Amino acid sequence: MSAGTGTPTRSGPTSAVPGTAAFATAVEQALTAFFATRTDSVAELGPVFTDAAEALESFVLRGGKRTRPGFAWMGWLGAGGDPAGPQATAVLNACSALELVQACALIHDDIIDCSRTRRRFPTVHVDFEQRHRDRGWTGDPAHYGESVAILLGDLALAWADDMVHDSGLPPAALARFAAVWARMRTEVLGGQLLDVHGEASGDESVAAALRINRYKTAAYTVERPLHLGAALADADPALITAYRTYGTDIGIAFQLRDDLLGVFGDPAVTGKPSGDDLREGKRTVLVAEALARAAETDPAAGDRLRAEIGTDLSEQQVGALRSLLTGLGAVDAVEARIATLTEQGLRAIETSSATPEAKDRLRAMALAATRRTA
Amino acid sequence: MSAGTGTPTRSGPTSAVPGTAAFATAVEQALTAFFATRTDSVAELGPVFTDAAEALESFVLRGGKRTRPGFAWMGWLGAGGDPAGPQATAVLNACSALELVQACALIHDDIIDCSRTRRRFPTVHVDFEQRHRDRGWTGDPAHYGESVAILLGDLALAWADDMVHDSGLPPAALARFAAVWARMRTEVLGGQLLDVHGEASGDESVAAALRINRYKTAAYTVERPLHLGAALADADPALITAYRTYGTDIGIAFQLRDDLLGVFGDPAVTGKPSGDDLREGKRTVLVAEALARAAETDPAAGDRLRAEIGTDLSEQQVGALRSLLTGLGAVDAVEARIATLTEQGLRAIETSSATPEAKDRLRAMALAATRRTA
Repeated sequence: MSAGTGTPTRSGPTSAVPGTAAFATAVEQALTAFFATRTDSVAELGPVFTDAAEALESFVLRGGKRTRPGFAWMGWLGAGGDPAGPQATAVLNACSALELVQACALIHDDIIDCSRTRRRFPTVHVDFEQRHRDRGWTGDPAHYGESVAILLGDLALAWADDMVHDSGLPPAALARFAAVWARMRTEVLGGQLLDVHGEASGDESVAAALRINRYKTAAYTVERPLHLGAALADADPALITAYRTYGTDIGIAFQLRDDLLGVFGDPAVTGKPSGDDLREGKRTVLVAEALARAAETDPAAGDRLRAEIGTDLSEQQVGALRSLLTGLGAVDAVEARIATLTEQGLRAIETSSATPEAKDRLRAMALAATRRTA
Repeated sequence: MSAGTGTPTRSGPTSAVPGTAAFATAVEQALTAFFATRTDSVAELGPVFTDAAEALESFVLRGGKRTRPGFAWMGWLGAGGDPAGPQATAVLNACSALELVQACALIHDDIIDCSRTRRRFPTVHVDFEQRHRDRGWTGDPAHYGESVAILLGDLALAWADDMVHDSGLPPAALARFAAVWARMRTEVLGGQLLDVHGEASGDESVAAALRINRYKTAAYTVERPLHLGAALADADPALITAYRTYGTDIGIAFQLRDDLLGVFGDPAVTGKPSGDDLREGKRTVLVAEALARAAETDPAAGDRLRAEIGTDLSEQQVGALRSLLTGLGAVDAVEARIATLTEQGLRAIETSSATPEAKDRLRAMALAATRRTA
C-alpha cells in the first residue's frame, strides 16, 4: 500500500534540482503514485466520491512551482542527505506531501477570499458550484460548491499525513519530521486566522502585517520546509538555527517583494493587471508602512489611502496611489527591509555548516525570490 | 513535549468503562493534557490565535459521549489490551484523538448544514459571526464566522494527527494505527461528501441512504474505532473481521434507530421537537423506504411525502406523515432491518475471540444503541 516502497530509478527523482521542471516532475510523480494508492478505498464509496477525488488530484497536479518540497529537499541535501542513497525516495515522498497541505490551504483560502479562479481554472468551490448549476439540482449552487470544497480541502489535509506515514521513512526520521510538521501546520493555520482577523478588525499596524507574513508565508514556505529537510537528515542544532533564520528572513522578504510587485509590477511581466492589490484592498506591510508614515507627516494622505484601497480604481487613480505610497517613503522603507532581511538570511547560510552546493543553491533561491520582477 | 510520557495513576484513565462518566472524564483529561502541549506554539502567534484556540478547546471539552474513543478502547481491551499495563496511557491518548477528528467533522458539518446551535451553544461559525457583529467590524459577519470555523476545523484535524504522534505509542503500534486511521478519515469525508451530493441531486434510493449511513456513521463511529483498538493490540485478522462486521451492522442499526426517533421519538425523552427530521427534510433510509414502496403501491403518497418534507410542518401534518410512513410499511421495514443487523452484529462478536468482558460490554453497547428511546 505504500508509495515509499518503490526503488529509486537511475533517471528518477533524486538527481533533480529544486526550481527546475525536472524537480517539479519528480514531485508530481510522487504525488501521482500516492493518489494511486487511494484509488481502491475511494472507489469503495462509489463513483460520486471517485469524481470528487479526481477533481482534487487534478487540482494538485495542475502545476505550481513545488516551492515547499523544493526547500525541504534542499534542507535535506544541505544537511548531508545523499540523493543517490537508499533514503532518497522516502524523503522525496515526505517532502512532496507538503503539496497536499498546500492544496488544503489553497482550496480553503479560495473560499475565504471568495476567489473565482486559480491558475486560470475555476477554483474548487466554483467548479462544484457550476456542476450543481449545470445539473439543475436542488438548493443553493454556491453553498453546494463551498460544502464540497470544504470537504475536499479536509481530504487533502488528511491525505498529506497519510502520504508522510506511507513515505517509507524509518520510524526515527518519521518522529523527527512529525514534530516540525506539527509546528508548521499550526503556524500556517494561525497565520491564515490572523489574516482573516486583521482584515475584519482593520488592524493597520506594520507589526500585524509582518506577523501575518511571518507565519502565513515565511514559516510555511521556507523556514519549516528547510527545517523538515534538516530533521530528516538529523542535522545538528546550529544548522537548523541557520536554516530557520534564512527561512524566516528570506520568506518575509519574498512576501514584501510580492507586495511591491502587486502595486508596481509590470503587467506584461507579472501577468496580473497592474495595481490589483490596491483594488483588492490587501493590507500589506507596504500599506501599513504608508499609513504609519502618513499618521506622522500627512494625515490627509492616510485618509485618502484608506478610502480608496479596496475600491474599483481607474488606472489614473492607481497611478496617483503609487505616487502617494512612494511620496510617503513607504516604498523605500520596504526596499530597505528587503535588503536587510536578504543580507541577514544569506549571512546565516554562508556561516553555516550547509554543504557548499546547498549554499550556492540557497543563495540563488534567495536572490530569485527577493529580486524578481514577476 | 509529549502528553504520552506521563505515568498512569492508580485512579487514572485505565480503570474506566466506556459509556460511563468516568471514561468521558479520562478522555477529557487526555485532551486537556494535549491542548496544554499546544499552548506555547499558539501563544507565539499572539492573543488573537490564543483566543481562537481556546474556542476550539472549549468546543472539544464541552461534552459529548466520547463514543468513538469508547469503541476504540473497547476494541483494544477486547483484543487483550491490559488497562493496567504500560501501554494503557498511550492507547487512551491515541483513542482520545478521535475526538479531534470529530471536532473537525462537527465544525465543518455545521457550516455545511447551516446549523446555528449545537449542544445548546452557538456553533463555531455562529460564535465568530457574533463576535464580528459585536465589535462592529468590516465585511460580512457571516462570512467571517465561516472563515474562522473553516480554519479551526482544519486545526482540529491537524491536531488530531499531532495527538496520535505524541501519544507515546511505540513505532510499530503507531504504524498499525495509522493505516486504519487513514481509511477512517477517507471514509468519513467521503460519506459526508455523498450526503451533500445526495441532498443536492435528490437521490431517493434506499441504497444511497444506506451507503451514507455506512460511511458517514457506521464506519466512522463504530467499525473503524474498534478496528483502531484492535490494531493497537495487534489483534489477529479473524477478530478484526468480527469487529468490523459488528461495527458496520450495529453502526447502521444505530443510525436507523436515530432516523425512527427523529420522526416518532417522544420529545420529552429525546429533548428534540417531535418530527424535526421531517421539517428539516432529512433523506433517511426511512423516507427512502417509504418512497420506494409508494412508487409501487401508492404514487400519490410518494408525491405528498416529497412535497411536504423539508417544509414548516404543523403538529397535525407531522402526525399525518407519520401515519403515511407507517401505512406504507416503511417503519416495519426499518425495524426489520434494525433487528437483522443487530442479530448479525451480535453473532459476529459472540463467535469471536474477544474477551468475555468485551463481549458483554459490546453486547450492552449494541443494545443501548439500537433499542434506545432517546
